[in-house]
Amino acid sequence: MAEFKPQGYLRHISLDCVVFGFHENQMKVLLLRMKYTKQWALPGGFMKEDESLEEAAARTLFQRTGLKDIFLRQFHVFSNPDRSKFNPAVRDLREADGGSDVEWFSQRFISAGFYALVDFEKVYPQPDFFSDRCEWKTLEETGELMMDHNEILQKALEALRLQLSYQPIGFNLMPEKFTMPELQKLYEALLGCSLDRRNFQRKILSYGILNRLKERKTGAPSKAPFLYEFNLENYNKALREGFNNTW
Amino acid sequence: MAEFKPQGYLRHISLDCVVFGFHENQMKVLLLRMKYTKQWALPGGFMKEDESLEEAAARTLFQRTGLKDIFLRQFHVFSNPDRSKFNPAVRDLREADGGSDVEWFSQRFISAGFYALVDFEKVYPQPDFFSDRCEWKTLEETGELMMDHNEILQKALEALRLQLSYQPIGFNLMPEKFTMPELQKLYEALLGCSLDRRNFQRKILSYGILNRLKERKTGAPSKAPFLYEFNLENYNKALREGFNNTW
Repeated sequence: MAEFKPQGYLRHISLDCVVFGFHENQMKVLLLRMKYTKQWALPGGFMKEDESLEEAAARTLFQRTGLKDIFLRQFHVFSNPDRSKFNPAVRDLREADGGSDVEWFSQRFISAGFYALVDFEKVYPQPDFFSDRCEWKTLEETGELMMDHNEILQKALEALRLQLSYQPIGFNLMPEKFTMPELQKLYEALLGCSLDRRNFQRKILSYGILNRLKERKTGAPSKAPFLYEFNLENYNKALREGFNNTW
Repeated sequence: MAEFKPQGYLRHISLDCVVFGFHENQMKVLLLRMKYTKQWALPGGFMKEDESLEEAAARTLFQRTGLKDIFLRQFHVFSNPDRSKFNPAVRDLREADGGSDVEWFSQRFISAGFYALVDFEKVYPQPDFFSDRCEWKTLEETGELMMDHNEILQKALEALRLQLSYQPIGFNLMPEKFTMPELQKLYEALLGCSLDRRNFQRKILSYGILNRLKERKTGAPSKAPFLYEFNLENYNKALREGFNNTW
């Protein structure tokens, strides 16, 4: 990982990516460990003078995970005036004789939070210049994170759960064909609770984002469950416009 | 309105307030008219070095409307690198011999959008240093706004409509006691369409944010409609946590 050079980046503005990973009914979040302070942190970055926040977040996500074309959502800006007063990157830079970069990291930053949901089996976690490790942690394992990163993580989780109520989720995470119980397990993992089978099925079918296939799951006992696939046209429409059956 | 002085404000970061007004079934938005270019614009501002974005937005809203303690929601950051290349404030300042402030307004800004919903009868619209008028306009009257403000307005409207599906709305807009048809008219005005009476009633009651009162509306014909009030404990809980009956 090349050294970070502040030239060409906008002052005062940073971004942090909350990358949720899901695989086989397990949910995790991607964290970096700072080289010197050994604190864990969300992967973050800065905005180039010719980039939008979305472009900067996509670049950051690609650098940390190798993933491209991922659904990344801006969810909140964290702007407490005290939030960047104790940035451990400053301490790290002093340890490493960071010179003029200390000034850059000592300024006040507001940070735009983005979240993404990826299949963590497809990710190659990469530490950055300030970190010695980049790893998946379950939500129980995260512990105390750097600066206000626990608050950012918590708010991302709330935003992701809220998204479940008005937009589809799960494409790129589910196999091409899946059963209703398999999809329900995704929602249960994200919500952190179990759901009523019949309510879930009624609700998810009412959104029109699923096609029921003629084939059933093979290898299952006599009452083989139906297989479904996402109806991508309706899925993408609902991603743009939200579920329309709200009122 | 005192002149704006850039000293003590954070560079590169602005905010724009989309103030929706509602009164007697009508919905409007608060706009300013720029002194020199005569373009209409959303009321915006900058962030002091010791303020959060929320504090800066509340200050801006108070300066434009005289209102305090209003539910203001951050909904999106607008960060297209080209968005502030043609800031008419720069032209206005040149006309007015703005001196060193031209440099401030010529820099690149990302802008955090906030929306609020107020009773427009209670507002005293105030122009700022750059504007000669501050007025309520219906959504049909807004026309072409300054810079990317049409996009900001559109996105605020989407965010407000989305909020209807997961959080309560209407406190401070409805009288203390109201009928179901009166509340439905608020939702219809915000959504811009008419709703089915029975679906609306079933849905809104399922959220538990209303108390039905023993008294009925007086002066109405024989089938006098029930009166309701907001259950503020449940209302505020749903504002924090969202409606819980989603899945």
